[in-house]
Parts: sequence; structure tokens; C-alpha cells
Amino acid sequence: MLHFDCDYMAGAHPEVLAALVENNAVQTVGYGNDPFCARAKDLIRQACAAPAAAVHFLVGGTQTNCTLIDALLRRTDGVLAAETAHINVHESGAVELGGHKVLALPSHDGKLCADEAEAYLRDFYADDTHDHMVAPGMVYISFPTELGTLYTLPELEALHRVCRSYGIPLYIDGARLGYGLAASPDVTLPDIARLVDVFYIGGTKMGALCGEAVVCTRPELLPRFFPLQKAHGAVLAKGRVLGIQFGALFTDDLYLRIGRHGVALARRLRALFESRGYRPFIDSPTNQQFFTLPNAVIDRLLPHATFEYWGPRGEAESKVRFVTSWETTDADIDALEALL
Amino acid sequence: MLHFDCDYMAGAHPEVLAALVENNAVQTVGYGNDPFCARAKDLIRQACAAPAAAVHFLVGGTQTNCTLIDALLRRTDGVLAAETAHINVHESGAVELGGHKVLALPSHDGKLCADEAEAYLRDFYADDTHDHMVAPGMVYISFPTELGTLYTLPELEALHRVCRSYGIPLYIDGARLGYGLAASPDVTLPDIARLVDVFYIGGTKMGALCGEAVVCTRPELLPRFFPLQKAHGAVLAKGRVLGIQFGALFTDDLYLRIGRHGVALARRLRALFESRGYRPFIDSPTNQQFFTLPNAVIDRLLPHATFEYWGPRGEAESKVRFVTSWETTDADIDALEALL
Amino acid sequence: MLHFDCDYMAGAHPEVLAALVENNAVQTVGYGNDPFCARAKDLIRQACAAPAAAVHFLVGGTQTNCTLIDALLRRTDGVLAAETAHINVHESGAVELGGHKVLALPSHDGKLCADEAEAYLRDFYADDTHDHMVAPGMVYISFPTELGTLYTLPELEALHRVCRSYGIPLYIDGARLGYGLAASPDVTLPDIARLVDVFYIGGTKMGALCGEAVVCTRPELLPRFFPLQKAHGAVLAKGRVLGIQFGALFTDDLYLRIGRHGVALARRLRALFESRGYRPFIDSPTNQQFFTLPNAVIDRLLPHATFEYWGPRGEAESKVRFVTSWETTDADIDALEALL
Amino acid sequence: MLHFDCDYMAGAHPEVLAALVENNAVQTVGYGNDPFCARAKDLIRQACAAPAAAVHFLVGGTQTNCTLIDALLRRTDGVLAAETAHINVHESGAVELGGHKVLALPSHDGKLCADEAEAYLRDFYADDTHDHMVAPGMVYISFPTELGTLYTLPELEALHRVCRSYGIPLYIDGARLGYGLAASPDVTLPDIARLVDVFYIGGTKMGALCGEAVVCTRPELLPRFFPLQKAHGAVLAKGRVLGIQFGALFTDDLYLRIGRHGVALARRLRALFESRGYRPFIDSPTNQQFFTLPNAVIDRLLPHATFEYWGPRGEAESKVRFVTSWETTDADIDALEALL
Repeated sequence: MLHFDCDYMAGAHPEVLAALVENNAVQTVGYGNDPFCARAKDLIRQACAAPAAAVHFLVGGTQTNCTLIDALLRRTDGVLAAETAHINVHESGAVELGGHKVLALPSHDGKLCADEAEAYLRDFYADDTHDHMVAPGMVYISFPTELGTLYTLPELEALHRVCRSYGIPLYIDGARLGYGLAASPDVTLPDIARLVDVFYIGGTKMGALCGEAVVCTRPELLPRFFPLQKAHGAVLAKGRVLGIQFGALFTDDLYLRIGRHGVALARRLRALFESRGYRPFIDSPTNQQFFTLPNAVIDRLLPHATFEYWGPRGEAESKVRFVTSWETTDADIDALEALL
Repeated sequence: MLHFDCDYMAGAHPEVLAALVENNAVQTVGYGNDPFCARAKDLIRQACAAPAAAVHFLVGGTQTNCTLIDALLRRTDGVLAAETAHINVHESGAVELGGHKVLALPSHDGKLCADEAEAYLRDFYADDTHDHMVAPGMVYISFPTELGTLYTLPELEALHRVCRSYGIPLYIDGARLGYGLAASPDVTLPDIARLVDVFYIGGTKMGALCGEAVVCTRPELLPRFFPLQKAHGAVLAKGRVLGIQFGALFTDDLYLRIGRHGVALARRLRALFESRGYRPFIDSPTNQQFFTLPNAVIDRLLPHATFEYWGPRGEAESKVRFVTSWETTDADIDALEALL
Repeated sequence: MLHFDCDYMAGAHPEVLAALVENNAVQTVGYGNDPFCARAKDLIRQACAAPAAAVHFLVGGTQTNCTLIDALLRRTDGVLAAETAHINVHESGAVELGGHKVLALPSHDGKLCADEAEAYLRDFYADDTHDHMVAPGMVYISFPTELGTLYTLPELEALHRVCRSYGIPLYIDGARLGYGLAASPDVTLPDIARLVDVFYIGGTKMGALCGEAVVCTRPELLPRFFPLQKAHGAVLAKGRVLGIQFGALFTDDLYLRIGRHGVALARRLRALFESRGYRPFIDSPTNQQFFTLPNAVIDRLLPHATFEYWGPRGEAESKVRFVTSWETTDADIDALEALL
Repeated sequence: MLHFDCDYMAGAHPEVLAALVENNAVQTVGYGNDPFCARAKDLIRQACAAPAAAVHFLVGGTQTNCTLIDALLRRTDGVLAAETAHINVHESGAVELGGHKVLALPSHDGKLCADEAEAYLRDFYADDTHDHMVAPGMVYISFPTELGTLYTLPELEALHRVCRSYGIPLYIDGARLGYGLAASPDVTLPDIARLVDVFYIGGTKMGALCGEAVVCTRPELLPRFFPLQKAHGAVLAKGRVLGIQFGALFTDDLYLRIGRHGVALARRLRALFESRGYRPFIDSPTNQQFFTLPNAVIDRLLPHATFEYWGPRGEAESKVRFVTSWETTDADIDALEALL
């Protein structure tokens, strides 16, 4: 069976697994105060060119988003996000369980438009009744977005300016950050660290067993973060498990190598579909690829390959998503080619 | 100064005030266990033709909405509502502070469409990933809506059927219920009690100093409601204050008399504007009237009358809202006529 | 029937009621932005000798406590309080519903000991694992306490010093503040305003229909309070109802007159019981009086007077509480004397 | 350096690690719907002799406690627990952040007394004001307790009876369950499954990298658990990581073997201390051992061994805790002996 349904189908990338095995017997203190975490934080700060950044390790994406949003917002403020944002759609209301409203703005192929965010903020404060409304207290975007698309550097700079001018943090959900950086023509990790107040470097979808690394370039935004992290159930007793994995991911450029591998295979996959006349319905440069396929083709593939319907099955054709990752091999694409 | 900015500008309706004064010295137990509350509940059950309904008195509208939504929903479920719903716009995120997401659907002049609600529910359960999404656990509508409009009896019946078929409660925010009932050609209070699981009969905007009466026609939906009401800070120690007022409102048909008065004055006001060529931009049959007026007219009125801009002031003309109530007199409309 | 079960048995004090009646027809804006509230705030600031204090009107005691505690605490901090504190016992978990832990310390006849609070704070920060514990973020006391007792001025000063040295606010629940001030030999309202960061002046138990006035002498502790108040359902649309009542309570010294009246009657009542040989089991100088009575006496009184058991009924004798208030008359005490 | 400060100092037990390595390349679906999780659940049901139990995998202990307590309690109910309970002391208020109060009862060497729990419940419902109080909606105990002690079978049966008679669930925090089962003279895993409604089998402290297995013998208590788990950020995308580990832990009796090993080493350690005249201050039969040691001894050990102060350092002697686990070797105890 070929697996294209997500980027978390297997265990850990071999180099990550090797690091876990190699250091398994070493005994350390818990809760992230161990040397593995310290080293990984240093490597991440270096990769971000952000020597003063605070780095925190959490376990999963939903957990990271809801904990950080709770940490960054005042009690009754809300978070601006595209209506397609993961926090607005696929986190079972974790943000609301934490007490905050997601203020949904139009999605442009998954992206939030800086001008629209600015207009929202301007209109909010211009409204005489705004004390009765949920104040937009931060901006959430994902990079890549849930639709695989990427913000350009000027787009990120525009969002940065809007947030700065209203004094609210800009946050990036980087669940698939490595695939985004590998595909982006202009945005680097240091750019993100420069333009964004808080973001997380996704591990789970980038070859770790679990784990997300939060980078906060303005540590004063997260005073006394540990108790809040703990109260959200977001602390791993064996924090070393995260430190070892992120240490491996940021050694020998592994994080970007994984990203580049996933993107290269996604391009082969896309070219393959296009060569058969199936155009993507979203122009995604990253490891998620979206096609409209005849149901007959889908039915021919399904016994041999996993992938996801994107919305309900249609009458004659349906939208589907194929995902590549560090696990995907050229042989997988070859096999898919043979099936098509 | 003429007051048309809201329906809570003065104190209590004289008959309500008289009841408070008359019974002021009577001593009773607290927390709503007094004979005044018992009598008012009986009167409300009679007016609703719902002898088995549970009635609870709360203090204000936002408090009532967020307490009841918290009581009716499972922990991670959300509430379906029109995007213009008060809970979605003007309650400072009270529903989210309580942990729940407002699932906003399109507004049709303030109304939620039963077909669209049904489609949302159907699509939700058809989506394979719905366990990762916020389940729609109840439907919230307002009667009249925030735009003064009314559901017809068939529209309410359709919403009732949708909710029943998905096993979720239908809830009405009746902050201005009396004005709605007075203006509706087909919907009565017993209709509402028959079709709706939980609704509240607004007091604050209908001549009370404060107070909203929640009617629950399926009391099993609100087990052990008191501790939750208390924990939400929504219990009045002198519950009698609410019982006395609702006793007065439901004596000698006062509630509907107030509604009819407000609506009659609203019709005079609308006719007056129309006679001068100013058309309403929403066709509201109730005590809120919405007009587009030339800024010159607005500026001529403002020194003499209060009313609200509805959105930002425009270049040459602006949208405004005029509200009538039990406080409005024919003399007020005469005076407005003289100003126009 | 004689009523000694609580201090909220009747409606409003006649002077408060008169103010409501007199101003009933005046039309004002809502949400507390009216001239009645403005005047009442000024009167309160004067009475407190705190010209820079912020004053906010809320509706009830539980609501006020849970809203203010939520406003004053960081997200995961807790509130230090005596184990007998109202917030720890009788508010249905409102503080916890808002996300905060009540850190209960021993009660000394209802009072929190400054030395014990200081030791708690010192031990907390000395504990290496304190990041895994709930940080004490504020101190809550009540004046009078739930047992009718009073802090002396030196005791308040000691609590003030402890809070200042740890940089956390001191908060007073003043549900019965007037009875406490009337009975205290040394503490005045300006003392409280000087020593306490946030406190509320209870209205409900002091002759208002409802309403509590929050005084914050360090307004920077409550930035953007209105949206939080609204989200807690703690805003009255007709805010004037609170402004008019507190205006009356702080005119011609009514608040203290009510306090003195209640205390004077409590002293008569206590002297009466003591003259019959029934000693109070708590030495309360305020309007709550606690006695151990033979069950035979209780049974003789119950057909004619209301009062509360304080704990379960005993074999031969039981603990009871008698409460006086502005409603209590000398004739009530005479009648009680005749019954004893 | 010798490590006795906790039972999560190293990575995974070699057999657990081997399973992770062996299955690393296998691709599966996510979120716990994979065959590894299915097999592990079956093994756990078999070990519990509870074929109808629901099993859920979560990541860490605090997360498990706060998610399950939120799932099991009504909105305003609280959880009865010994005052020394982990949820009351060392989880940064996670239970309160979820909206619930911990109702602390006296600790008897870490244990909750069934009679005291019953008396609390009886008094609660006998109190006329209990609707204003937090209702005890479940009972939390830990096995072993935070002090290493164990409930006897009759004690568990008594707690079971109390919970059944009041219709509330009994919950066990089994962070160190294996050490408890290994040390208990009478309690088996099937006993726990028979007497307890919901409990978790700790993985993190029993040789897993992370992970706790919740066993619910009355699945109707946890309807629609997944969305709540997700909203609490307690779902692992690569759920397989938990399934593989628990599969290993419940293969060839590994879970109990680890427990027995830890307990055997704890006994050697205790005998060693006792042979030098240092008596434990708590009589713990499990892998946590508590001694009062002269500061001189502590200072001699500290350069060579890690262990925890249990409370503040004393003048001449201090309380300390030594913990053994699957990582501890006989050589470690030999080395400690040489140091003493």
C-alpha cells in the first residue's frame, strides 16, 4: 500500500530515531531542564539567527496552538485567523475551550490578507460599541497554510507591520514549517524569526515521533510560561524526548533536508498528475497537493494507495489531497505512476 | 431631548414600579424561593400554555445567553447562530469565555435559515473528520432578531423540525420578545413554547429595571440548573425583585400591551420617515427601525434626539437606527415630525 | 413572622426606593455611562477619600467576586483565602469555573492571619517545585467575615504589608461592609481604601434591591475592565438602577446609618439572648449573631421567627444564626423577647 | 552519578525501545486508529480481565487527570481527593483551569479514608445550602499514592461502595500503578478494573518515553470522548507511538516485571538505610522511599547521587526521597552502600 494521506504515517526519521536510541540510557532531570533540551534550544536559536529567543518544547500542534493563544491573549480577546485556519476548523474548539474566540476572516487559498486584517482592526476600534465586542488581540497564520500555500516575504512583512501598528503579536502555526521553508523562494527561518513574535517549528509532521518547538522572539510576551504550559497538560515529564529529537532535526541541516525531500517528491507527484491531464485545484508549492480526479481514477487507486477526499465525493469527479513527506520515496511515485 | 437610541432608557414601566413599591416591605426568603417568584412563574406558564415548563429568573441578556448555552451544550459543542446574532457580535465573547464556539451561519436580515442549518448539520456528520471539529449542539435564534425582523410560524416550525431531527435544542433569545409577539401576524407565545426548547422572555427592554425569564419546556434539559446559575454569578439574592416585576408584566396583559405600544409607535415613526421619502433599509415590523438618512438630516436631528448610527458615518448619508418602547409617546413622534 | 434569617429579606431601604421612584422617568444612556452612576461614583470616591479610585457597579456578590478575581489574577494563579471564605464555600465554585484555585488557609473565627499568609507565600517561593504549583496571586478577605468578625486596623495593615511585599493585590469582599464599618472601633472606609487594592461596597445586604460597588484604588490593576465585566454577564443594561441606588446610599450618610442601625439592633438581640443565659459561640460585633440554643427553645421560636441553623441540628441543642439589618425594628426585638 | 530523584530519568525500557525501533517504518493511520493501538488495547483489556472496557491513550499524567476529570464531572461539580493528591498540589491548577474545584479531604499517609469521604457526601446533601456549594461529583485517589503507600483491597472496596451509593465515579491516578501492583499483597489489576470506574495505567514512570492508558470500565461515562480529548490538546497525531509502547509493556508481562524490579530495588535500598539506622518516616512499600537523614549524610551523598529534599532542609537533619525504577540496578545500590 502506498501512503499519501498524511505526513505522520510512520515513526521517526531514521536520524531522529538513531538519536533517541543512542541517548536512551543517559539519565537526566525531567521537565525539559536537561542538557538535550538546552542543546536543541541553542541549535534552534542559531538556525533562527535569534540568539535572545525563548524556546519551549510542547508535544502536539493543537496543544501548542491553544496553549500559546491562551498565553498571548488577554482574558476576553480573540485571535484573528483565516476561516480555513486549523484552529477554526479542526481542533475541536480547543481555543474556545480555553476561553477565546476565533475571529475568522476570508481565506485566500488559505491565507489571511494583511489589508483585510488591518481593515478589521481599524473598523473594530472605530466602532463605538467595541467594548461589547471581542477585541482582536493577536493574528494567527499558518506557514504553509492548511492548503499548502505560502506567504511571500512581502506578505509576511505586511502582516508584521499591521500587528506592530496595533500592538498585537503575530503568531505562526508551523506544523509543516520545514516543507514551507524548502518550497519558499524568499522566506527563510531567520526572516520568520525577525517578522513573527511567536511561532512553532513543527516536529510531528517533519520526522519526529511527536513534539513542536515554540520560538518566542519577544520573551516578555510569555512571562511565567511554565505553569501555564503545565496547567494545559502540555509538559512532557521526559522532556528529553523532545530535546533529543529537535537536537537531531537541527543537526546537519536535517530539518531542511526533510523539507526539501518532501517538496521534491511533491513536485514529482504533481508533474505526474499534470502529465495525465489532472490539474491541481489549488496551486500549492509544498508537500500537500490537491487534485480534482475522476471518480474512476480514484476508485482504481484506492485499493493500492491511501489519500484523502477533500470535501464530499462528487458525482463524477472528486477533490482529493496527496501528501508527501520524509517517508515518501521515489519508488512510491514510480508505483503511483504505474497505477495511474 | 427625544430618546430613540434604545429600549432601556428609563426605569421601570409605571405598573412594574408600582408593584415594586407596593411589595417593598414584605419580607421573604431569598434566591427566588419566594411567593412572588412562584406566582410570576405560574403566570408565565399560563401565558405560554405550558403548565409543565420550568421557569428561571436571571438578571440580564448576555448573562442569560451564556449561562443557558453553557447549561445546554456538552463541553466541546458549539452553538449555531446567524452571523449577526447578539452572542456572535455584542457580548464580548461571553459564550467563548464559557468554553463554547459560536458556529456562525449566513444572516438573512438577521435570520437563520432552517435549510442552511440542516445542511450544516448534515455536512458536519458526513465529514469523516468531524470528531476533530466543533459539533453543533444547539441552535440559537433571536425573536425579534437584532435587525428587528421576525421568523414566521412556518420558519419556526422548520427550525423546530431540524433541531428535533438532530436531537439538539432550539433556543430563542427573546430580549425584545414582547415587541416581536405584538408585531407578528402568526406567532404567539404558546407557539414559541410549543416549538422551542428553551427561550427567555426579556424584561429589561420590556419595562423592567432588570430581569429575564427563562422558560424551559423540557426541564430535563436543565438538570441541577441552580448551581450552574449561581456559579455564573447569575442568581439575584433578592430574587423577589425579579418575581415582583415579572408578576406585574404578566398581570392584565401588561407584557403584550407594552409590546403593542412600542410597535404602534414604531409604525408611526416609520410612516413619518417614509412620508418624507426616507425608506428603511431593513423591513423591520418591530420596535427597531432602520433608515438611511442624509447626513444633513442627521445633523439637524442630533441636537434634539438620540439615535444610533448603524455602522460608520457615510460620505453624504448614513445608516441609523431608531428604537421605540413603552417609554415612547405620541408626543415624541409629534416632536420628531416637527424636527424632520 | 419575625425575620432574622438574612439581611436581604425585604426590598429596598425607603430612601433608596424613593430615589428609584423619583428618577424613574428620567431617560439616560445605558451600561453605566449615565449621570446617576457618575454622581454615585463621585460620592463613593469622596466617602473613601480616594479621588483617583476607579468605581465599577456590578449586580451581586458572587458575580463581583468571580469577575474581579478573574480580572486580578494571572491565568493560572490562585487566590489565598480563609477556608471559611464565601468564595471557598458558598459560591458553587464560581471562582473555579473561571479557572482559578482557592488556596484555603486556616480560619480564625473567619479571619485570615497575615503571618500565616506570609508563611504560605514564603514557603511557596522557597519550594523548588513551585512552578508545578498554583501561585498565590492575590489575597481575599471579607469585612465583616462570614462569621461576623472584624479585622482590626493593625491586622489590615499587616495584610497590606504582606501583599505589598509579594506584589499581589489585597481584595475585600464587603458584602456587609456597612455593618462592619459601623461596628469597628478603628477601621474607616478611607482606611480600607488606603490599605486595600480592590474592594466592594455591598449594596444588596445594605438596603439596595441589588448592586455592589467595586472600588479599585490602583486602576492600573483593572485595564480594559468593561469587556471582562460584560463577558462575565456582570453588566446591567440599565446601569442607572445601580447608580441611583448607590447615589442614595451615599447621600446623607445613609450607608453608615443603615450599618449602625443593624449593629445596634444586633447588640440588643445579643444582650437579650445573653440575659437568658445563651452565650454566643462566636464573638461577632456585627449584624450576624451566633448562639447555641436548646432545641426546645428553637422549636418554640420557629413558628414565629425565621433564623438559620448553623450546621446540622444537634441532639439537645443546636447552633443558630440571627441576622439583623436595616429592616429590623426595635419592635422585632421586643417581640422576640416575648417569645424567649 | 547515581540517580534516585525520580522514575523518569532515562529514555524507554529496552523492550519498549526495541518495539519502537522494530515498527518504526510501518506506516499507519493516525490519531490512535492504527493496529498497534488496537492490539495494545486488547492486551490491556485482557490484563484487566475487563473485555468491555474502553481504553484511551493520552500523553502525560497531568493531561490525563485534567482531561478525565473534565470528562467525568458535570460543569460545576468538584472532585474529592486527599489534600496531598497530585491534582491538588503539583499540577499547576490544571483541574481548576478546566473549571473544577478540588475538594480536599485529610490525607492519611497519602490516602483518602472511605469513611471520611462518605461523611463528606452525607453532610453535603444534608446541608440545606448545598445548591450554593460545589457538589462532590467523583472521587480521585492515586495508587500508589504520592507518598508511596497503597490502599488495601478492603479499602478499595469501601471506596467503591461509597461511590456507588452516591452514584459518582471512582477514579485512580495510576502514574506508578505497576510499582503499586508489584508491592501490593492483595490488589491485582483485575481488582482495580472491577472496583474502579476509570483509572489510568501509567506509562511514563513505568518505562515508556511518554503515554498513559486510560481504562474505563463503564464506557457510558465517557460519551464522545475523542473531541474532548482533542480539545484538551491530549491527542497524539502519531497515536501509534503510544500503541507500540503499551503493546510492549503488556507483552510478556513486562509491565509487572518493571514494577517488581523497581520494588525489589526499593526494598534493598530501604534495608540499606535501615541497616545504618535511618528509619523511613513514611512506611512505603513501593518504589518511593522516604528517610530522615542527617544533613552531614546528605551532603556526603549529594556529589555522587541525585535524590529530592522532601520539604525544606532542616537544621541538623532533613527529609529526603529516593526513587527506584526499571533503570535502577543492583550496582547502583551497591554504590550507594559504599557511599553511606
